Amino acid sequence: MSVATAIAALELFLGDRLTCAEAVRAQHGRDEAHHAPRPPDAVAWAETSEEVSRILGICAEHGCPVVPFGVGTSLEGQIIPAQGGLSLDLSRMNRVLAVNADDLDAVVQPGVTRMALNAALRETGLFFPVDPGADATLGGMAATRASGTNAVRYGTMRENVLALEVVLADGRVIRTGSRARKSASGYDLTRLFVGSEGTLGVITELTLRLFGQPEAISAAVCAFPDIDSAVRTVIETIQMGVPVARIELLDEVQIRGVNAYSGTAMAETPTLFLEFHGTEAGVAEQAGQVAALAQAHGGAGFDWATRPEDRTRLWDARHKAYWAGKALRPGAQGWVTDACVPISRLAECIAETKADLAESPLIAPLVGHVGDGNFHLAILLDPEVEAERAEAQRLSARIAERALRMGGTVSGEHGVGFGKIGYLRAEHGEAWEVMGAIKRALDPQGILNPGKIVPSN
Amino acid sequence: MSVATAIAALELFLGDRLTCAEAVRAQHGRDEAHHAPRPPDAVAWAETSEEVSRILGICAEHGCPVVPFGVGTSLEGQIIPAQGGLSLDLSRMNRVLAVNADDLDAVVQPGVTRMALNAALRETGLFFPVDPGADATLGGMAATRASGTNAVRYGTMRENVLALEVVLADGRVIRTGSRARKSASGYDLTRLFVGSEGTLGVITELTLRLFGQPEAISAAVCAFPDIDSAVRTVIETIQMGVPVARIELLDEVQIRGVNAYSGTAMAETPTLFLEFHGTEAGVAEQAGQVAALAQAHGGAGFDWATRPEDRTRLWDARHKAYWAGKALRPGAQGWVTDACVPISRLAECIAETKADLAESPLIAPLVGHVGDGNFHLAILLDPEVEAERAEAQRLSARIAERALRMGGTVSGEHGVGFGKIGYLRAEHGEAWEVMGAIKRALDPQGILNPGKIVPSN
Repeated sequence: MSVATAIAALELFLGDRLTCAEAVRAQHGRDEAHHAPRPPDAVAWAETSEEVSRILGICAEHGCPVVPFGVGTSLEGQIIPAQGGLSLDLSRMNRVLAVNADDLDAVVQPGVTRMALNAALRETGLFFPVDPGADATLGGMAATRASGTNAVRYGTMRENVLALEVVLADGRVIRTGSRARKSASGYDLTRLFVGSEGTLGVITELTLRLFGQPEAISAAVCAFPDIDSAVRTVIETIQMGVPVARIELLDEVQIRGVNAYSGTAMAETPTLFLEFHGTEAGVAEQAGQVAALAQAHGGAGFDWATRPEDRTRLWDARHKAYWAGKALRPGAQGWVTDACVPISRLAECIAETKADLAESPLIAPLVGHVGDGNFHLAILLDPEVEAERAEAQRLSARIAERALRMGGTVSGEHGVGFGKIGYLRAEHGEAWEVMGAIKRALDPQGILNPGKIVPSN
Repeated sequence: MSVATAIAALELFLGDRLTCAEAVRAQHGRDEAHHAPRPPDAVAWAETSEEVSRILGICAEHGCPVVPFGVGTSLEGQIIPAQGGLSLDLSRMNRVLAVNADDLDAVVQPGVTRMALNAALRETGLFFPVDPGADATLGGMAATRASGTNAVRYGTMRENVLALEVVLADGRVIRTGSRARKSASGYDLTRLFVGSEGTLGVITELTLRLFGQPEAISAAVCAFPDIDSAVRTVIETIQMGVPVARIELLDEVQIRGVNAYSGTAMAETPTLFLEFHGTEAGVAEQAGQVAALAQAHGGAGFDWATRPEDRTRLWDARHKAYWAGKALRPGAQGWVTDACVPISRLAECIAETKADLAESPLIAPLVGHVGDGNFHLAILLDPEVEAERAEAQRLSARIAERALRMGGTVSGEHGVGFGKIGYLRAEHGEAWEVMGAIKRALDPQGILNPGKIVPSN
């Protein structure tokens, strides 16, 4: 058995940093979504790039699949070893290697989580903005091209990774990009590896953009009579060029969940959560512009949160939306969708989706990074009931097809894994084959996270 | 002869849209820099994506090199057919296909120039920000990952191309990306083709981000006692997070050229040209912040230009810097360098470079997109004098090595072509081989702009 011989060779090298213990394998065989788990044959912990290189060399020699693992918060099965093999846990590579405050960048190992980085930055006056909700590792966030609530202002991992160190399938270690802010020197390998979900290489170091903590921050909550009014406020805000830092939609179902879960008493109606960053004057100006738009669409006042503790409570409620949503149906699992469309189509896309839900037996709270045209449902289902899985699959497929019909994408930020792979031909056509050709060029044996993103050979 | 049979086959298909006339071939065999010209064997004009596909199919069949051509403003030999073959002129594919004002995007053919696009947008209140100086085609700007004076605020072509249509070496037509603002759906082929200089495919359609014309714009000019003071003002401006739209450095030599060329009477000392975009209040606030920093570094007042015609005059002088610089030595050619470094190293990088120049017999005015850490020399030389070419090469090589030593890149925005290819192993190491592997996967025959960017097989 090639996997077995690989594991035996790895064990000689790694000692007790390799395990086949069932509980550990199980923990590395499931992510946070509805996908069926599958444990790896073994789990290894790497502590240096050189070790990752040696591990990949051994796996390549024996044809053993390798799946990089951070903290396991993927949503499309990215970290589930679809064909078994080795789960390569990078969580011990968790050092912040450099903070270059003068250049607004930091160099980190892949196992550093976004909260750990921000904790390390606290005294510098800088922060790393990308915030997908979960306290994911930065390596995992780069690998899945994560974004989240403030991408509308600061961009996604695509914009915020300057450079990478990557170990290739054959064990070669390469560096992509530099600390320069821009470059026209050769192919953009950094952007190629960002979002490649471990299928082209294992990220072992990241250079990330940082931002100055804004002089002033204010946050607001605004309730709307219906979802269309809320979305139209968002569309006009973006079209006016107001540099909102966050503009999040929670529908009435989601607000009901938040109230139940967090003990709040918000009006159970579609609601926008907003945040403004800038100078004192700039923040006031932005907020005034958006408040005027909201009012014109029937938004019921602006509840302000200028004190840090109030803002924390507000965003805490937003970040717990997934758990709050699940609380609407205790014991249910969430099947999370991830459509992203041009913002002019957002109201229509959400309206069609809500019409589907009105006729479905399943409940599905909606949250959206609406400034980007991105929204999620958490379709609540009992995964043991086949009819419910089928219904969630049906709703999810209709949303994916709708996003494509409206000129958008099946995944705004959760990625492909195997959960979305079935839609990639529809989204990319012949370009999907080009992705496959690149995969074969960089990983001819197909040992890196096989079964994800690209067509099978 | 394979090229000859390809040309014969193309002529049957294209008729008088294919020519071997010497004057046309000569015009398609040189760019705007110092590189030795080499004409293509023939020039073809394509008018549709289907025609590009058919042309590439014929060239692939006969192993004929194909070099895409826009208006010929490249600076590193990108459009010079290093191995002969066909120059594929896309300038007739010059239609703006759609302006989606609600989504802040536009769809254009590759032969549309940036000024033509902005003229087409005038009534919409929107604009396309990337501005490399030359009125280049948008296809060419995407292919070379162009940027320019306002990249510090709006980003480069990397950030401002949402989606592409590309014809591959075998004639297949693919679409990359979508009109959604973000996506985690598969490999980022859009960013792979942006900056690939026609070596991976021919761009036949672009979807571009647009921005609202700012409510208020103001510009300013500020003279400094020495270059270090000017650069330190820039560094602090960036570190403070002031969202300047443009912050350009012209050294004393360049200002002397501008005065001579444009008839201005600016103090011949290092000078910053600035522009601020925003609301009335925002612009005033930004300008106040930068004025305070400049004053602390001995900046001599802020000369304001708030009237559009004054601003146009100011930026016109900046945009003509290359020609103004050349006027310092009539008949000379400019050998343009393009280092880009982390901003904390910029003052040191420029100081070392100026020290080199102080000991060189050649004159070289300096302009810099200093907010990005990017600066150019135009080393003025008589290309017929071998000793001058050798000296320019020596200075240029020292700058490239200095940029790499300081954690930067040999090309901030002009790209690689064959002009910078000699530095790519030093900059990218083994990653350069990965670029070569991708090239071979997408263009196994090597017919697309051979001799550029990647290692030869």
